[in-house]
Amino acid sequence: MTRDEAGTLDAKDPLSHFRSRFHFPDRNLIYLDGNSLGRLPINTAPEVDRHLNDEWGDRLIRGWNEGWMELPFRLGDKIGQLIGAQSGETVVADSTSVNLFKLAAAACLTQRPRTKIVTDDLNFPSDHYVLQGLKTLLPSLEIVVIRSSDGVHGPVEELVSAIDDQTAVVTLSHTVFKSGFVYDMAPINRRARQVGALTLWDLSHSVGSVPVNLGDTGADLAVGCTYKYLNGGPGSPAFLYVNDHHQRLLANPVSGWMGQTRPFDFELTYQGAPGITHFLTGTPSVVALKTLEPGLDVVLEAGMPALRSKSLVQTEALRTLWENRLQGLGFAFNSPQDAECRGSHVSLGHAEAYRIDLALINEMGVLPDFRAPDNIRIGIAPLYTRHVDVVDAVDRLCTVVESKAYEKYSRTADGVT
Amino acid sequence: MTRDEAGTLDAKDPLSHFRSRFHFPDRNLIYLDGNSLGRLPINTAPEVDRHLNDEWGDRLIRGWNEGWMELPFRLGDKIGQLIGAQSGETVVADSTSVNLFKLAAAACLTQRPRTKIVTDDLNFPSDHYVLQGLKTLLPSLEIVVIRSSDGVHGPVEELVSAIDDQTAVVTLSHTVFKSGFVYDMAPINRRARQVGALTLWDLSHSVGSVPVNLGDTGADLAVGCTYKYLNGGPGSPAFLYVNDHHQRLLANPVSGWMGQTRPFDFELTYQGAPGITHFLTGTPSVVALKTLEPGLDVVLEAGMPALRSKSLVQTEALRTLWENRLQGLGFAFNSPQDAECRGSHVSLGHAEAYRIDLALINEMGVLPDFRAPDNIRIGIAPLYTRHVDVVDAVDRLCTVVESKAYEKYSRTADGVT
Repeated sequence: MTRDEAGTLDAKDPLSHFRSRFHFPDRNLIYLDGNSLGRLPINTAPEVDRHLNDEWGDRLIRGWNEGWMELPFRLGDKIGQLIGAQSGETVVADSTSVNLFKLAAAACLTQRPRTKIVTDDLNFPSDHYVLQGLKTLLPSLEIVVIRSSDGVHGPVEELVSAIDDQTAVVTLSHTVFKSGFVYDMAPINRRARQVGALTLWDLSHSVGSVPVNLGDTGADLAVGCTYKYLNGGPGSPAFLYVNDHHQRLLANPVSGWMGQTRPFDFELTYQGAPGITHFLTGTPSVVALKTLEPGLDVVLEAGMPALRSKSLVQTEALRTLWENRLQGLGFAFNSPQDAECRGSHVSLGHAEAYRIDLALINEMGVLPDFRAPDNIRIGIAPLYTRHVDVVDAVDRLCTVVESKAYEKYSRTADGVT
Repeated sequence: MTRDEAGTLDAKDPLSHFRSRFHFPDRNLIYLDGNSLGRLPINTAPEVDRHLNDEWGDRLIRGWNEGWMELPFRLGDKIGQLIGAQSGETVVADSTSVNLFKLAAAACLTQRPRTKIVTDDLNFPSDHYVLQGLKTLLPSLEIVVIRSSDGVHGPVEELVSAIDDQTAVVTLSHTVFKSGFVYDMAPINRRARQVGALTLWDLSHSVGSVPVNLGDTGADLAVGCTYKYLNGGPGSPAFLYVNDHHQRLLANPVSGWMGQTRPFDFELTYQGAPGITHFLTGTPSVVALKTLEPGLDVVLEAGMPALRSKSLVQTEALRTLWENRLQGLGFAFNSPQDAECRGSHVSLGHAEAYRIDLALINEMGVLPDFRAPDNIRIGIAPLYTRHVDVVDAVDRLCTVVESKAYEKYSRTADGVT
C-alpha cells in the first residue's frame, strides 16, 4: 500500500467521520496504542462534568435511586451487544482480574470434585496470577498450561486434547495480548461442553475490535476490560458475563452487598440476588461508569462489522508493508499471517525493539507500545486510525532503523504500559 | 441549643470557611447524609476535567508513566495520615468489600491451622457477606458472631472473651453503621495480639470523622471507604491498610498484575512486589482516583482534631434536643448517650421512621437517611454542616411528627441508600 492508495481508502472509508468524535490535541501524533488505552471521546468530559455537577452535586445521595444503581446493568447490556450476549448476561464491575477471580472461583467450586484448570502460555500474565492466587485458597487445583509452539498461535489442538472429564475450567484470552492471535471459540467451547468443563474467556483485546458471539458458540463465562477498544479511559471498570443457564448454578464467593437480595434490608445472612446481580460485590464508582459510557456508545454506533472490516484491511496493509519493507530491516512478524485469526494489533519483533520504540515516540511522533522483551505492538483502532497513519508509521519505523536513530537510547528497559 | 445559640457557635466556628469548598446548588436543603455520600467539593469537577483533557486526552498511554501508577500509593499515604498509618502502609484500591475479602483471606491463610473468625452483629452486613463468601472457599472457617445486648453498643467484653488462641481474625466496624457506636480499638487489639489473632478493622464510618490510630493501638489490618466523610464521590475507590510488620508475611490471594514485581516483564509466575504493592490486583480507575483526591485534601487541611471537636458538639446538641423535644414525640435515641463512644452520626428510632423520612425529604428540605427497619440516621459532616442546620432539622422533624404530615406516605419500604 502506497500513501496515495492509503489516502484513497481514507477518502472512501465509511468510518472516517468517527475520527471527529475523539480528541486530537496533537494532530501530528500517530497514536497506535488504542489497544492499550483508547483515545478520549469528545463526549466524555462534558458527560462527566454533567454527572459531577448535576447528579452528585445537586441530587446527592438521591442519585442512587435516580439511575446510578442501574448503571452496571445498563452498560453491561450495551457491552453484551458486542459479544453476543443476551440482556442480563453481562454486568460492569471491578477490574478484569477481580472479575476473573470471581468467575474462576465460582466455577471451580461448582465443578468439584474436578480440579483441573486448562489454559495456555499466551494468556495474559495477570490471568495466570489470578489462577495462582486462587490455588492458594483451593490447593487441590491443578493449573495445566499448554504451550504454544511458536509463541504466536494458540495451541488449539493440544488444548482440545487436554480438556477432559477432569477439567473444571478452560480459561484463555480470546485475543492474545502479545501476538494478536484470535481463538476460534466454537471448537473449544464444544469440546468443553462435551466433557462438562466450563469455559471462561478473557475478551480484553477482543471487545470492540473482533467479532465475538458467546451465545452462539456456547461459551459459559467471560470477562474483559473497557479501556482498550471501548475507550473507557485509563483503568475504566471491567465487565463479566455469565451465560443465563449458569447464573443460578454458580455462586460468587466474593459476595458483597451489591449482590444481595434486598441490600437495604441489611440482613446479616447473604442471599444472592437472582440473575447476574449476585456477581456484583461492593459499591461501583459512578464517575468511572459515567466516563466509560460515551466511548462505548461510539463503538456501538459504528458497529462491529464495519470496525472489523476496516481493521482487517489495516492489519493486512501492515503485513504487506512488513513483507516488502520491514522484513529486510530485521523485523519479525510476530502475529498470525492469516488475517482471519488476527486481532486488531500486530507485533513486530526486532532485536532493538526497545530502543526503536523510544526513538519512534521521542523523535518521530509515533506512539505504539513495547512488550518485553522485543516486540513493538502496533494497535489499530479503526474508529480513529487512518490508512495513511499505517503507511506513515511504517515509513518512520524504516527511517529510525535505517538512520540508526535508536542507537542513542539506553537498552535499560523500563516498560511502557 | 436554641437557634440563636447555634448561630453564635457558627459565627465563631473555626471550620466555617470550609463550607465554601463545597457545592451548594440548593441553599435550602439541609443535607444530613454526608455519612453516606459526602458533598461535591468545588475543586473536584475542574480537577477531573483537567485530568480527562490534559492527561488522558493529551498524554494518552504516557500518563501511566507520568503519575497514574503512583496514585494508589500517594492517595493511600494521604488517607494514612488520618488513621495513624506510616507511609507505605495504606493503598487505595477496589471496593471496601473486595479489600476486606483480600485481607481476610490473606489473614486466614497465614493463620492456619486457626479457623475462627470473630465479629459482631453490628458489623456492616456486606462485611458479613464477605466472610460468608470466603467460607465457601475455606469451609473449615468458623464465623463467630457476638451479639450486642442493645443493638447500639458493641459487645466489648464478650468480644475480648471470645478472642482466644484458636482465633485467626477479629474483624469489626470501628464505627458501627447503624448506631454510630465507636469501638475503643486498643483493648481489642491488645487481646488479639496476646493470643496471636489478627485484627481487621472496617473504618468506613470512621475515616475523616473519628480519630483513628492504627499504629499506636496495635491494629494489624484495615479497610475503609472514601465516599462518606472523605467526599470522594459515589462509589469512590476504597483503601486497605496492612501494618508494615505483616506486609511480608501476608500474601494476597486475589493476585494480579498491579501487585507483581516488574509487571512489565510479563512473567507467567506471580511474584508479589514488596511492601503494600502486592495487595493491589487489577488496573485502577484513574478518573475515580482523580475524583477522590480533592475531597480528601479538604479533610486533611481541616485536620481531625478540629473535625472531631465540632462533630462532638453537634451530635451532643442532637442528643440534648432529642432529650428535650424528640423523646416526647416517640423517638428513641439509638446511638450511644456517651459522646466519647459516638461517631459522627446519630440514629433516631421511630415506629413511623420510614414515612417521617419521606416527609422530611419531600416537604421539609431535610435529607437524612433511613436505615431499615425504623431508624432515621442523621449524619454530621463538620466540614459543611452548621449548628443551625442541626437545630432547624430537629424543628422540621418535630413539625412533621406533630402535624402528622407523614401519614400521606405509604409504608412500603424501598430503602434510601
